Amino acid sequence: MIAEIIAVGSEMLTPHRQDTNSLYLTAGLNDLGVEMAFKTIVGDNLRHLIQAAKIAIERADVIVFSGGLGPTEDDLTREAAAAALGIELHPDPAILTALYKRFAARQMIMPPNNAKQADVLDEAVLLENKNGSAPGQYLDTVVNGHRKIVILLPGPPSELKPLFDDAVKPRLASALPPRYLARRMLRMALIPESQVDARTAPIYKQYPDVETTILAGNAEIQLHFLSAKPTLAEAQARVDELTGKIEHEMDDAIFSSHGESLEEVVLLMLGMRHLTLATAESCTGGLLAQRLTAVPNSSSAFIGGTVVYTAELKTSLAGVAKETIDSKGTVSEEVAHELAEGIRARTGASIGISITGLAGPAGGASGPDAEKPVGRIYIGLADGRQTTVKELNLMGNRERIRYWAAQQALELIRRHLL
Amino acid sequence: MIAEIIAVGSEMLTPHRQDTNSLYLTAGLNDLGVEMAFKTIVGDNLRHLIQAAKIAIERADVIVFSGGLGPTEDDLTREAAAAALGIELHPDPAILTALYKRFAARQMIMPPNNAKQADVLDEAVLLENKNGSAPGQYLDTVVNGHRKIVILLPGPPSELKPLFDDAVKPRLASALPPRYLARRMLRMALIPESQVDARTAPIYKQYPDVETTILAGNAEIQLHFLSAKPTLAEAQARVDELTGKIEHEMDDAIFSSHGESLEEVVLLMLGMRHLTLATAESCTGGLLAQRLTAVPNSSSAFIGGTVVYTAELKTSLAGVAKETIDSKGTVSEEVAHELAEGIRARTGASIGISITGLAGPAGGASGPDAEKPVGRIYIGLADGRQTTVKELNLMGNRERIRYWAAQQALELIRRHLL
Repeated sequence: MIAEIIAVGSEMLTPHRQDTNSLYLTAGLNDLGVEMAFKTIVGDNLRHLIQAAKIAIERADVIVFSGGLGPTEDDLTREAAAAALGIELHPDPAILTALYKRFAARQMIMPPNNAKQADVLDEAVLLENKNGSAPGQYLDTVVNGHRKIVILLPGPPSELKPLFDDAVKPRLASALPPRYLARRMLRMALIPESQVDARTAPIYKQYPDVETTILAGNAEIQLHFLSAKPTLAEAQARVDELTGKIEHEMDDAIFSSHGESLEEVVLLMLGMRHLTLATAESCTGGLLAQRLTAVPNSSSAFIGGTVVYTAELKTSLAGVAKETIDSKGTVSEEVAHELAEGIRARTGASIGISITGLAGPAGGASGPDAEKPVGRIYIGLADGRQTTVKELNLMGNRERIRYWAAQQALELIRRHLL
Repeated sequence: MIAEIIAVGSEMLTPHRQDTNSLYLTAGLNDLGVEMAFKTIVGDNLRHLIQAAKIAIERADVIVFSGGLGPTEDDLTREAAAAALGIELHPDPAILTALYKRFAARQMIMPPNNAKQADVLDEAVLLENKNGSAPGQYLDTVVNGHRKIVILLPGPPSELKPLFDDAVKPRLASALPPRYLARRMLRMALIPESQVDARTAPIYKQYPDVETTILAGNAEIQLHFLSAKPTLAEAQARVDELTGKIEHEMDDAIFSSHGESLEEVVLLMLGMRHLTLATAESCTGGLLAQRLTAVPNSSSAFIGGTVVYTAELKTSLAGVAKETIDSKGTVSEEVAHELAEGIRARTGASIGISITGLAGPAGGASGPDAEKPVGRIYIGLADGRQTTVKELNLMGNRERIRYWAAQQALELIRRHLL
């Protein structure tokens, strides 16, 4: 069976926005043995949308619309799908009631145009949207003697993803012949892609029935393995065998073999050792703390910290001696050292980690920092017995430098805990 | 005139790779007054490609293919374009010679299939590719009485971009009537999309010659305006007139009319008033500080703060009384109040802002917090004269609740500074 995704929204026809939902949808459809054959991106234009919908219904078996289900006049996916299929829309009373309640709960009156979100394709199953107001729709029908599965999903990823996983995939799985896929992923940080490929290619090339993909990005390398077999046991056995050999080769460069992020791994390792962590961030300005606290229940190991953006706060909130800053500059091994020890002492954490550096675009303002290049970062780690500082010289723009600095700090903690 | 981009390549139908060339091409085409109407992504499949090419030639005036011009059997764009147009390909002797020379220069023998890179659509102009072996092609023709401009470009961005800029844009510019585009964008936070639409639609509907797009996402609403006219002055005048009326209607709900982000606007306003800001974050765990410090030169107004994830740190790092936490819970108006005042006092900032709440997925652990629902957030703002606290009840998952809480905090500061 082949699929087409129609991403709806004029914003995706500008130079500024891109369809990203289709990557997620493709992964999910592939899992079910559905191959992606076309993707169409079309604006909020009824004539264009109907045209695109007709073409997709003609040439694909599974047609997924993403976007255009909102309450505005620009939201035309329902109307276009109905017109292309030659069927009617009818308002669903339960959805209409839910919409009114949603507004009432916020003590607001629902604008009349919101009611169109309750319009349903005849015969379609409504898919409850727990994260937004527009429900999805699922229609398994026959057009000109061919079975067609037409799926309407809201555009925001936070709504589309859970709806697709919880409501679409189970329905599609029972509608399609069974097929078994096994996947594994290994994640590594701060190691060049070319090195990973050189070390792993001789191994994965011996497994032509396992699809291996190396992805690099966000200061991380991912190795994806995928096998499709007549039984799940066969698929899993092949993937596990290959993964085991690659794990042996790459050893402790691998931080995760079950999908966890680097911050999750660090929090897990801290938790297992009954240790706590506190952060003192300068150039990353809370990015490290933010990444740690994005993990649910991170408070069991991460207790907090400071964002010490100015020299004064490095002294007042994290106990760095003013003389150290004056003589060595805020971007220095010495300040990173005192920051890590200072935040550890002030918070009572088992481990204190500090980041200070120049994220750019401007360089060091004055004094000892003026000579240091953009990208110079010091990361300090204090555990009460010893304090170590690592110097980094990172390349790229402000965003990249900050992200890599936080990533290096996490990797430093992970290696410290190994 | 409307355009369609056909991005060719099976890798863009996997979950891992995306078409990115089209953003660049769209910007360039918009510059020339050509509007993007459709994007199609199709694999290396001749039947699918011919089908997609026929559809594009039917519905668009300018059709740009990216990719599929290489030497392998999978490279089928030339063949598909010829078939869809009903014309022939012929080998270009000069290109063929250049290909042979290219290989000879590397002391290699050219594999026979490479010769297909010299195949040219009848009547097409060849576009020399200085960065690769496959030349581009440019065909200005008439199909069924309609003028069609068909452009073939290689897929690698390092080849496509210079070819498009140097060889395609000048040809298109002289082939098309001069037409100029003007754009504006207004940004608003924390206001429902439907409300924005209800209030602005009566205005923008009076400007059918200005394309208005409402984008919602990331706790923000964007209104995009676009007008194309024979002169830039006319286009700009229409867009400015409409933008002015919408600004008048939405008034201070608009935080930006020149593209700045909410954090940039807050930092600008603080800077203009010679004020400084410090943060004390609990559930957002550094997200607010991280967003502020992502802006270059944010240190002129943002001095730093604390991430007080545990109850103990709320006391030790931000001066919240232990009794307040014990009696009211960490998620309380009173704690937000003391946190905002505490961080202001400890850092010497003009304004202290605090965020405490339950981001989920688990609810309050024990004591007074146990009864509070996930999504309950308190934001405190202290400016030395008075301290205000706002209670929020946010919906969604942990990520969304945290982002909205930070957004609300920024909007609270902005409105405080108005």
